[in-house]
Amino acid sequence: MVGMQTPRRVRELGITVGTLPTGPLNAITDVAGVRVGQTTLTGDGVNTGVTAIVPDDYAGTLPAAIAVGNGYGKLVGSTQVDELGVIETPILLTGTLSTFRVADAFVTWLLARDPSATSLNPIVGETNDGHLSDIRRRPITPTHVHAALDSASPTLPLEGCAGAGTGTCALGFKAGIGTSSRVLDRGTVGVLVQANFSGVLTVLGKQLPAEPIDADGNSCMIVVATDLPLDSRQLGRLARRAIFAMSRVGSDYSPGSGDYAIAFTTNRTPTYADRDLRTPFQAVMESVEEALLNSLTMAQTTTGHQNHTAHAVPHERIQNLT
Amino acid sequence: MVGMQTPRRVRELGITVGTLPTGPLNAITDVAGVRVGQTTLTGDGVNTGVTAIVPDDYAGTLPAAIAVGNGYGKLVGSTQVDELGVIETPILLTGTLSTFRVADAFVTWLLARDPSATSLNPIVGETNDGHLSDIRRRPITPTHVHAALDSASPTLPLEGCAGAGTGTCALGFKAGIGTSSRVLDRGTVGVLVQANFSGVLTVLGKQLPAEPIDADGNSCMIVVATDLPLDSRQLGRLARRAIFAMSRVGSDYSPGSGDYAIAFTTNRTPTYADRDLRTPFQAVMESVEEALLNSLTMAQTTTGHQNHTAHAVPHERIQNLT
Amino acid sequence: MVGMQTPRRVRELGITVGTLPTGPLNAITDVAGVRVGQTTLTGDGVNTGVTAIVPDDYAGTLPAAIAVGNGYGKLVGSTQVDELGVIETPILLTGTLSTFRVADAFVTWLLARDPSATSLNPIVGETNDGHLSDIRRRPITPTHVHAALDSASPTLPLEGCAGAGTGTCALGFKAGIGTSSRVLDRGTVGVLVQANFSGVLTVLGKQLPAEPIDADGNSCMIVVATDLPLDSRQLGRLARRAIFAMSRVGSDYSPGSGDYAIAFTTNRTPTYADRDLRTPFQAVMESVEEALLNSLTMAQTTTGHQNHTAHAVPHERIQNLT
Amino acid sequence: MVGMQTPRRVRELGITVGTLPTGPLNAITDVAGVRVGQTTLTGDGVNTGVTAIVPDDYAGTLPAAIAVGNGYGKLVGSTQVDELGVIETPILLTGTLSTFRVADAFVTWLLARDPSATSLNPIVGETNDGHLSDIRRRPITPTHVHAALDSASPTLPLEGCAGAGTGTCALGFKAGIGTSSRVLDRGTVGVLVQANFSGVLTVLGKQLPAEPIDADGNSCMIVVATDLPLDSRQLGRLARRAIFAMSRVGSDYSPGSGDYAIAFTTNRTPTYADRDLRTPFQAVMESVEEALLNSLTMAQTTTGHQNHTAHAVPHERIQNLT
Repeated sequence: MVGMQTPRRVRELGITVGTLPTGPLNAITDVAGVRVGQTTLTGDGVNTGVTAIVPDDYAGTLPAAIAVGNGYGKLVGSTQVDELGVIETPILLTGTLSTFRVADAFVTWLLARDPSATSLNPIVGETNDGHLSDIRRRPITPTHVHAALDSASPTLPLEGCAGAGTGTCALGFKAGIGTSSRVLDRGTVGVLVQANFSGVLTVLGKQLPAEPIDADGNSCMIVVATDLPLDSRQLGRLARRAIFAMSRVGSDYSPGSGDYAIAFTTNRTPTYADRDLRTPFQAVMESVEEALLNSLTMAQTTTGHQNHTAHAVPHERIQNLT
Repeated sequence: MVGMQTPRRVRELGITVGTLPTGPLNAITDVAGVRVGQTTLTGDGVNTGVTAIVPDDYAGTLPAAIAVGNGYGKLVGSTQVDELGVIETPILLTGTLSTFRVADAFVTWLLARDPSATSLNPIVGETNDGHLSDIRRRPITPTHVHAALDSASPTLPLEGCAGAGTGTCALGFKAGIGTSSRVLDRGTVGVLVQANFSGVLTVLGKQLPAEPIDADGNSCMIVVATDLPLDSRQLGRLARRAIFAMSRVGSDYSPGSGDYAIAFTTNRTPTYADRDLRTPFQAVMESVEEALLNSLTMAQTTTGHQNHTAHAVPHERIQNLT
Repeated sequence: MVGMQTPRRVRELGITVGTLPTGPLNAITDVAGVRVGQTTLTGDGVNTGVTAIVPDDYAGTLPAAIAVGNGYGKLVGSTQVDELGVIETPILLTGTLSTFRVADAFVTWLLARDPSATSLNPIVGETNDGHLSDIRRRPITPTHVHAALDSASPTLPLEGCAGAGTGTCALGFKAGIGTSSRVLDRGTVGVLVQANFSGVLTVLGKQLPAEPIDADGNSCMIVVATDLPLDSRQLGRLARRAIFAMSRVGSDYSPGSGDYAIAFTTNRTPTYADRDLRTPFQAVMESVEEALLNSLTMAQTTTGHQNHTAHAVPHERIQNLT
Repeated sequence: MVGMQTPRRVRELGITVGTLPTGPLNAITDVAGVRVGQTTLTGDGVNTGVTAIVPDDYAGTLPAAIAVGNGYGKLVGSTQVDELGVIETPILLTGTLSTFRVADAFVTWLLARDPSATSLNPIVGETNDGHLSDIRRRPITPTHVHAALDSASPTLPLEGCAGAGTGTCALGFKAGIGTSSRVLDRGTVGVLVQANFSGVLTVLGKQLPAEPIDADGNSCMIVVATDLPLDSRQLGRLARRAIFAMSRVGSDYSPGSGDYAIAFTTNRTPTYADRDLRTPFQAVMESVEEALLNSLTMAQTTTGHQNHTAHAVPHERIQNLT
């Protein structure tokens, strides 16, 4: 692995996305009660991992909805969220072929915490990190999964080459995990992304073209957390805006991309009028745009499987844009 | 396990469902190129298993669609089928908490057969067999999964207490796997069900009430296979009729039921006009009704987890109806 | 028009559907604040009309959802209900080719009642009454539409050959409008149907086959009203059960049928747990089954367009079943 | 009406959107067999109209699909397109409150052309032109509708203040109808838009902020025509990209916007592989972006209802961007 450039968040590079104020961490963990934990696997042709988004009270169920931008992905748990409008577990992200291995280890962890459970709907999203990671080896073990869940903390999550973003690439550059948040009068919106999709990197409208990375798959998983008092239908509206916001950084929404957004709220008493959703929508779109940029500027040049290298976006190219 | 009564298919009991002719086996395997394999686990409080529906040419993808009757279930693979309109793997059925363990073993099997695959969309359905099986133990191993896939044959599948139906109950009785088929001018429709839902057993319109079985979950997985030249949209229309047909045997479509139908065709050249779908719809509904009845009359009284017993429906009660 | 037989509701014929108690009227108008008005057009080859379901407080919006059983229909207003989860107008039913004429007259009526409205989402459902009515003539005028709306009352609605059911046929017999209700601990469920679909009439499981009526279209519109505290997602679950219940009276869910259910609640504060929906689901299914039977037993033999005659189901055939 | 500036298409202003070649007209009418006709109503506080997209062989049905970006709109015809995957009529666009009046006149026109039709599924989209037009007056008559249909021609459609775009505004400026096309190896993609939505105008990534126009509604209707051999599922994928592309010109996807895309093909024999859709997706997104820009640069400053004025975007502001 080569990584001369110090990872920086895009705001540190002088880029301000949108007009709404960020939370104190500018992260999904600005939403009270939402923690993130990650396990990172590197070395020997492997660059993969697990990212866990853990709401405090998941077991009591939380209102939630999923938006499918392009369904070329193996998202676990979607039909039950559609039917019941809730999540009943944390949300995990990982690499494509490890999805079910991770989901099964997740079930082990959940069963250990609920002695009477006989039905569980784990949520596991994935993108394909096969360009930099020997994906067919499926190196993730239950220990890795449990470590991600058990280490979840309310601090700023690691971005770039961490957890489920360790091996992902986007827009011709090394990418990974990114996060951001916005604060509104009545609550907070936080976003975490696993970026792994094609297109031309666009920063505040300016393009930074790069040679496409010949990945086996291209996808984007977006998690939106909030404490706004929204019901599942309204969270679905937020989730669709998360998909729309991918366009702002240059996604080409390619036919082989698994683009999903899942939105949940920690607030179980919906009281929000639809006509007032304009600012929450804006908050989602600004947070997704900034989280996607952070996933790139926080990533480091990485060499992995079959000696493939994906380069970090040079920060000076971004700084020179402005 | 107690099972005095010899299992019989519902036609052997004098019940004829509908008016269309059945295929030679009256089974999903009447559709050319469709095979079924099953692994059954019993004993020591366990009654569970795996059922594999294996189309010959799955790897080249087959047109398919999924209908969600009630999404309280963990069906793996649905969003990609929605997006691309195809299955690219066989279809597995199992017990709820084993779903992801089974899916991961399935990935192992698929990777071994495709040395270049880095993305796969396994289809795994489930119902909750926790009343008769120690579901939290998750006893299914990769060996069980691979045995079901490897043993797939074009003969009449085992019905009742076999494979994924080993521990399931429906309509107050022991149920399990059932299958049936209908032959049309232009092709065959075959159905296989994993029956595990609540309601009042209804045979050709006559009710046979039974004490409800206090199951932790109630669900029905329905697989519809055909060789009719249908596209994925049309297969979705068939799949919805499969859900509708559950009513004919007395399903109450309870809020906690995971009721899904997946329909696929072995024919990749769609040429069927929608106005001609009346008979295929009828074929699906007749086959589902008969397969569900077979899942009951072929099942045997079973004792399992925590000494729970589910009784087979007494055949004389059915014969006395007519 | 010939109609020797006195129309009777199916309960008067000794048929009791289900086990839950009905409301005082056994009608959708048992839901407090829900009124029904109808305009009936007959003579000169015309048998058509308008049925209006008018909730008192529609203008403040009411939680609602639509289920599409088979989308071969021209239902006006569905995408906005899907997005916002509410109705903002009454619900009208009519004949297919008059749908937009009716919707435009409906807009006139609504604009007159809201001097500032510049956007409205009228809900208009339809089925094809072209077998008995000269449908291409589109005889319904604004006066007819406004009369249906203005005459809405909380009494027992006319059933059979009334309003939008004047010219419809179902299951080989003359059909029309039907209604029924069920009372639960926490509220009431009421249903009104416009029945116009194919299949074999089934009464409590017993079939009464009849020569198919060669209608140009076959469809069923179902309106479910309640005062239970449900949100739009839950109302969608109820609406799907309304579609499933069509099977109980023998619907064949033919490919050319426009089968829709719209469910709304007069209660704007959702507090109902999904695990408690079993009885509301049962109430919907019982009410739909009984409303559909009422639509037949209350209808009278009718002769109309091109001298087509549709016969009422002979009551003694139903009474002899039991 | 004031309009000093000569309307120009955005390419005439030196702006080139994307990299794919346009068709000869750079319009939806580059797709062989697709014609456009429009009726424009202006004066006395009215700025509205009708735009008709008329495929030659509509009556034989054409594969089609609809994508709902935000369902706050009254789109007529969507559920049948979802079910059957075809359009069976031309597509009309108009102003919100005239939707059903237009649809009824459309039925008149269709019935006159098909002496045996008793069921029709007209497609009518709308946006709210109430800021510049006295929308409650519903001034559109059958004559206006029939004129739009009858005048349909394969030439370059009028853009800006024409037809259904006469009174619409977008991104703080006067907008209207826009069109564009792209030519691929295997066929052509053409787009026509009715632009009426909020956000900040963005031209090739550069923002041109403007005072928001206080419109009563904000929406965008997008029609995508092609002769590529796609089935309805694939056309749905194209339609979703049309919604995604709204972001490129600065849409904020506000909660009150009715954003819909309908895609159809004149080619009834689907043979296109999903893995080859990358370029068709690109063609859709480039065409939508350019059509939306054309809808603005071709529009003229307009004064209408209640003396509201919407200003055309000054061309020099766009030219100065580059």
